[in-house]
Amino acid sequence: MIIALDAMGGDHAPSAIVEGAVEALNEYGDMEIVLVGDERAVADELRDKSFPPLRVRIVHAPEAIAMGEPPLSAIRKKKNSSIRRAVDLVKAGEADAVVSAGHSGAMMALALIVLGASAGVERPAIATIMPTFKKPFILIDAGANVDCSPLNLLQFALMGNAYAKHILGRPAPKVAILSIGEEEGKGNELTKESFKLLQAADLNFIGNVEGKDIFAGEADVVVCDGFIGNIVLKTSEGLAEAVIKMLKQEIASLPTGRLGYLFIKSALKGFKKKTDYAEQGGSPLLGINGTCIIGHGRSTAKAIKNAIKVADEFSRKKTHEIIRQEINRNTLPVKGNTLAAG
Amino acid sequence: MIIALDAMGGDHAPSAIVEGAVEALNEYGDMEIVLVGDERAVADELRDKSFPPLRVRIVHAPEAIAMGEPPLSAIRKKKNSSIRRAVDLVKAGEADAVVSAGHSGAMMALALIVLGASAGVERPAIATIMPTFKKPFILIDAGANVDCSPLNLLQFALMGNAYAKHILGRPAPKVAILSIGEEEGKGNELTKESFKLLQAADLNFIGNVEGKDIFAGEADVVVCDGFIGNIVLKTSEGLAEAVIKMLKQEIASLPTGRLGYLFIKSALKGFKKKTDYAEQGGSPLLGINGTCIIGHGRSTAKAIKNAIKVADEFSRKKTHEIIRQEINRNTLPVKGNTLAAG
Repeated sequence: MIIALDAMGGDHAPSAIVEGAVEALNEYGDMEIVLVGDERAVADELRDKSFPPLRVRIVHAPEAIAMGEPPLSAIRKKKNSSIRRAVDLVKAGEADAVVSAGHSGAMMALALIVLGASAGVERPAIATIMPTFKKPFILIDAGANVDCSPLNLLQFALMGNAYAKHILGRPAPKVAILSIGEEEGKGNELTKESFKLLQAADLNFIGNVEGKDIFAGEADVVVCDGFIGNIVLKTSEGLAEAVIKMLKQEIASLPTGRLGYLFIKSALKGFKKKTDYAEQGGSPLLGINGTCIIGHGRSTAKAIKNAIKVADEFSRKKTHEIIRQEINRNTLPVKGNTLAAG
Repeated sequence: MIIALDAMGGDHAPSAIVEGAVEALNEYGDMEIVLVGDERAVADELRDKSFPPLRVRIVHAPEAIAMGEPPLSAIRKKKNSSIRRAVDLVKAGEADAVVSAGHSGAMMALALIVLGASAGVERPAIATIMPTFKKPFILIDAGANVDCSPLNLLQFALMGNAYAKHILGRPAPKVAILSIGEEEGKGNELTKESFKLLQAADLNFIGNVEGKDIFAGEADVVVCDGFIGNIVLKTSEGLAEAVIKMLKQEIASLPTGRLGYLFIKSALKGFKKKTDYAEQGGSPLLGINGTCIIGHGRSTAKAIKNAIKVADEFSRKKTHEIIRQEINRNTLPVKGNTLAAG
């Protein structure tokens, strides 16, 4: 597999990105990495590192898209951005997958414009792995689409289902809609309509799941629109951090504070490892003609290494092809209706 | 103040409810409680307790609405439910406020039908206090309205603002819209339209706030539709529980497990106290002609005692009257537009 890696994307680029690439090369055999970015900056980062040189290539991309830029105008203006050149490599068949921890809006837009949505997919979606104290679940859409239709949610369910089956190895993934009550009649207009579509589809649909139950590991795939998905994702990140911070405050305020902290330090470490986004590496953008992995903006070298691993696995298993087949097997009649209506 | 208390509502009714009422009577002077429910069951619970008898009255209500019942049909069928009779007491002027930990859908419907929305309020909303490691914030709407308009969100902002000012004592509450990016252009259709209305209103509007920032205590009032609000509320509950559970697992798995657990036990206790819904007691339904406090279904005696305290404070400060004035001071022109348009 050949992975195109945006060397300029993310808060700690290019150093953490190049470091992650080197770690991936040394840890996983049989994989090539194309580092896309400012040639001199990337070469500087590589200089003192040890890695198999024949498995690395640098593609010069002199521009970088900054986090605050509006994605569409940035794409128009910067034809030589590192994200664009990385996506172009997949389009040209020079790479099997693209990984970027940079501007996720630009990445999504470029994936759509350059690679295109898979035939039959109305809206690609971001699938994110969320930890629970049993087993992790897939949250889809985690932020690609803010206003969604019931057909969109059905397709998110099918794509998440394929992910859970073929990548996570869960034989009959439990698929649920994130809503505010378990009964069919509970929810908003979108979830109520989506409920009927998911019920009719070839899925192990377990109905609605409430926010309080998702972290109990009740479902393998939790479906929602990208606005809610992103809020759930960010709220969870913020809350988990706040909980740890509050606990540390509480421990520090005890008479046995320092000693107590020493005792639970390794427990906190174990917990952080389980819940750390860096362990997951990156979230795939599903429903695209190709493998696109979106890394966290704060990606460390470890996060990049893991994102590369995810990209490799998705490409190897031809997940985007499986998803295309699943979507077309399931949604042709609905798609017909939608086209007729719209 | 006279508080009408639904003695049959909640998972631990009537015992926890009556117990909470007795605790409130003994702790707070100058307050009367009307226990509404099955006369015999309530009297049984009171029998061995010590309390000022002249400040307690029982009103017999032979029916109870169960948690799973569809609210509207339950209300129609059960004219003598404890929630209904409790709300009726406020309508008749025999009580100043109503508290129920029972069926929240039934409580909302009855509040609307019997007491009515305040003049000018399109949709009453539930305001819930959420803990952070700085100071708690108000989440509104926490679940009363699943599909909302920008005008609804503006009114939620105004009601939450009044709550923060007059009950929490924050002089210029920072009001924010829960969204997926801080810039004005980020969000879904609803939040983008609402942004303009909140910006034009007489509020200390700080713009959008992301999920990851709410628990950092950035805003005093966080505004969203009730679908998202309820998901955030439930997700937070579920996640906080999961985090504690995962941490305990981690600690138990260490060689020093038992000892470490002893050390942090009191830290966990302190943390739980800060984040426990029972400490807040209940969430007011704002925008109603009267004071209605919705308790958590799992309410313990302490939660009920605190909910009674909240009800007492809201009534004493005539919060519903303040809210009516704020809404009318701020939204008349918008209201006019809306009426003209619709």
